[in-house]
Amino acid sequence: MLESPRIAIVGPGAIGLFYGALLAKAGASVNLLARSDLSVLRSRGIVVQRGGATHTVTAPTVVAQASPAEIGPVDLVIVTLKTTANDRFEELIPPLLGPDTAILTLQNGLGADEHLARLFGASRVLGGLAFIACTRVAPGEVQCLHPGTITLGEFGRPAGERARAIAGWFERAGIPTTVTDRLAEARWQKLVWNVPFNGLSIACGGLSTDRIVADPVLSAEVRALMDEVAAAARALGHTVTEEFIRSQIDITPSLGAYRPSSLIDWQAGREVEIEAIWGEPLRQARAAGAPTPRLALLHALLRTLCNQRRRDSCPPTKP
Amino acid sequence: MLESPRIAIVGPGAIGLFYGALLAKAGASVNLLARSDLSVLRSRGIVVQRGGATHTVTAPTVVAQASPAEIGPVDLVIVTLKTTANDRFEELIPPLLGPDTAILTLQNGLGADEHLARLFGASRVLGGLAFIACTRVAPGEVQCLHPGTITLGEFGRPAGERARAIAGWFERAGIPTTVTDRLAEARWQKLVWNVPFNGLSIACGGLSTDRIVADPVLSAEVRALMDEVAAAARALGHTVTEEFIRSQIDITPSLGAYRPSSLIDWQAGREVEIEAIWGEPLRQARAAGAPTPRLALLHALLRTLCNQRRRDSCPPTKP
Repeated sequence: MLESPRIAIVGPGAIGLFYGALLAKAGASVNLLARSDLSVLRSRGIVVQRGGATHTVTAPTVVAQASPAEIGPVDLVIVTLKTTANDRFEELIPPLLGPDTAILTLQNGLGADEHLARLFGASRVLGGLAFIACTRVAPGEVQCLHPGTITLGEFGRPAGERARAIAGWFERAGIPTTVTDRLAEARWQKLVWNVPFNGLSIACGGLSTDRIVADPVLSAEVRALMDEVAAAARALGHTVTEEFIRSQIDITPSLGAYRPSSLIDWQAGREVEIEAIWGEPLRQARAAGAPTPRLALLHALLRTLCNQRRRDSCPPTKP
Repeated sequence: MLESPRIAIVGPGAIGLFYGALLAKAGASVNLLARSDLSVLRSRGIVVQRGGATHTVTAPTVVAQASPAEIGPVDLVIVTLKTTANDRFEELIPPLLGPDTAILTLQNGLGADEHLARLFGASRVLGGLAFIACTRVAPGEVQCLHPGTITLGEFGRPAGERARAIAGWFERAGIPTTVTDRLAEARWQKLVWNVPFNGLSIACGGLSTDRIVADPVLSAEVRALMDEVAAAARALGHTVTEEFIRSQIDITPSLGAYRPSSLIDWQAGREVEIEAIWGEPLRQARAAGAPTPRLALLHALLRTLCNQRRRDSCPPTKP
């Protein structure tokens, strides 16, 4: 296991900045592929607010670059782009790859693992689920409300030495990290919560989760959507137990007036990860022959709401 | 058949004003139970804009009254209230009833026939479907874009002499009117179009029907919702043929940038007829054991959007 791996972070938003700062403090050489935050990151490094204190991580352990070519090959590429920007993989990732470079995507939903595997070879790819609450509050500055945990695994095969080594780097950086032999199953399990709550929070006109669970009619729809996602996961060979589903319902009231990440994106006028969270699960469910009528309707509505807004804010240019 | 029936119109909005004017011109004695439009109707009568011309119908053939007691018993009560005001039946209708008074509701969706039958006896009740395009453009003033047709029937039994007499009054007033022996079936058939288009037009953030049919993802959801409604209708013993469903899809592009009545209500900040169009059909489908997952989700979303807006516009008073 490398003591001081070279890591590139592609998409240094809140999660990328936070993990980047922690991995750098733990001894990794962290390269941020930055765009809008580039000059701030170069002059000041990453600023992390956490538990009332502020920490700063600067060069040389953290280096911000404008292009992947300036970074060059690394041991590990961590992908924290919004999935709506995944069409940039082919432009951003190749210069970062050496013969043994691993690629870890910590992105939401389904599809990114497969996408990276198609482009760069399945053997390079790992995926992970970041259970974390943090927000980018200013350029180069992230506020961490809850450092959470990571679950990671290899794409399409059980976890091996490499996955455990990468998990070890995160552990040393202070993030409890679990290795799973069943990455795809873990992704589907996370969808059991994300599909209904992220989706209904937007489709209901901007409802936090406390308002959803307080309404018996909406709660019944949450449960029905969870059942559809679980049945689709099972049709694909994954395990989702009734106890797990119930736990996903039971934890929600404790989150308070929680706004799911997709609702935050929606309300901030940013792109919503429609395809990763609803579109690709729907396609996989259909291919497996699992009936998902509510997921289909919810996907159609969310997709239309987002298309509508894009259309309203960017009217087509007339000749 | 009475040559000059006494008719009371409860809820003189666009449809009530239009039919009231036409029935009065055809010889009926029309009494409008008016509220906000009362003084205008008393001073000026009903103004109808149609095909570029303006017609006015005044007293004594049209009389506006502020209370049902001032009208007293009539031959026919025509109910054209919004269904969201149906909790006022017990206050508004009894003074209008004599021993043989019939009650005809021309309201949307399901539930009003049964509601009136429960309160005033099934034998008095008829229901009808108004296929019409008209708008109340000012107090006492209605613009008719398309006079359309009426389909009417007796509640819970085949049409008899009375239904044909009432249809005859509408025919004499110039509205082609069909009598059906199967009122409930006709109501379910109308829902095949109204459930998806009225619902999706609101849930998609304000889409006219041309935009819905132009989107293949939304069109597939329209068809799936139509299939759910048709299957529920069949489970309740009604006939809805594949040809009928297809006709409902095929006519829609010809409507152009059409805004369903519920979308017009929603965009004007008025109450949407959630229970008549989605809630009651959902309950009846469930009671018949017909699976309606998309209808259930759509109902939950529309109900929440409306509750949200009511809550936002009328914050609870604090002590």
